[in-house]
Amino acid sequence: MRMALHEAEQAYAAGEIPVGCVIVAVSGQGVVIGRGHNLTQMLHDVTAHAEMQAITAAAETIGGKYLQGCTLYVTVEPCVMCAGAIGWAQVSRLVYGAADPKRGYTVYAPQALHPKCTVTAGVLEDECQELMRRFFQEQRERK
Amino acid sequence: MRMALHEAEQAYAAGEIPVGCVIVAVSGQGVVIGRGHNLTQMLHDVTAHAEMQAITAAAETIGGKYLQGCTLYVTVEPCVMCAGAIGWAQVSRLVYGAADPKRGYTVYAPQALHPKCTVTAGVLEDECQELMRRFFQEQRERK
Repeated sequence: MRMALHEAEQAYAAGEIPVGCVIVAVSGQGVVIGRGHNLTQMLHDVTAHAEMQAITAAAETIGGKYLQGCTLYVTVEPCVMCAGAIGWAQVSRLVYGAADPKRGYTVYAPQALHPKCTVTAGVLEDECQELMRRFFQEQRERK
Repeated sequence: MRMALHEAEQAYAAGEIPVGCVIVAVSGQGVVIGRGHNLTQMLHDVTAHAEMQAITAAAETIGGKYLQGCTLYVTVEPCVMCAGAIGWAQVSRLVYGAADPKRGYTVYAPQALHPKCTVTAGVLEDECQELMRRFFQEQRERK
């Protein structure tokens, strides 16, 4: 999750909503096969969430579209779109930091993940949340 | 929807699940600003659904990420991931052909679209459904 937070900080520095994601293939020592951060502003593309970038990168790395046996770390609870993608990719474990009651999948699409996917919430929650809070406060102050 | 079906037929010809999508900016005469078909096999990427391709293409065309005032035509009911993306993009109208009770957003994420988005289902339903049926029958016969 430290690496995912580092990705989120990169998004923050670029003026993007600070969400970061890392995907690890957990067999053996654990290898990072994909990472990403939110790029929706830069790419003018609502689909460019951190998780989507990381899933596409991971699939590219392994040359296959299914991420069974992989853990996806993301600093904020995935939205409906990203949870759907995590489900399609059959990710085995999801670990997230801050909850997102306004947009999070646990409220709006609780069955989106693969039925065998295990979920751990609240990892480094305060740091993940604080980065988001700081970003949106700065956005408000600019207006 | 005819154009979306044409996209779906291209997916079919390429051995992809035959779903096609077209996005039209409806102001004035209506201009196609994005289109796409399923490419998950070719790209080894679960995120490469028809709607995602079309949304990314449309955003590229207009140089902005929001698709207010646009209609998205897709041959099969969007999944949770795609409905989430359609919601983020603030698409104003969704028109789809065949329902997808196993994966469709109306069952698994009924609030995913933008609250103001209007939905028309069942347009050219038989043709959209028949293409899917034929594809999966052929897949079964190959096994």
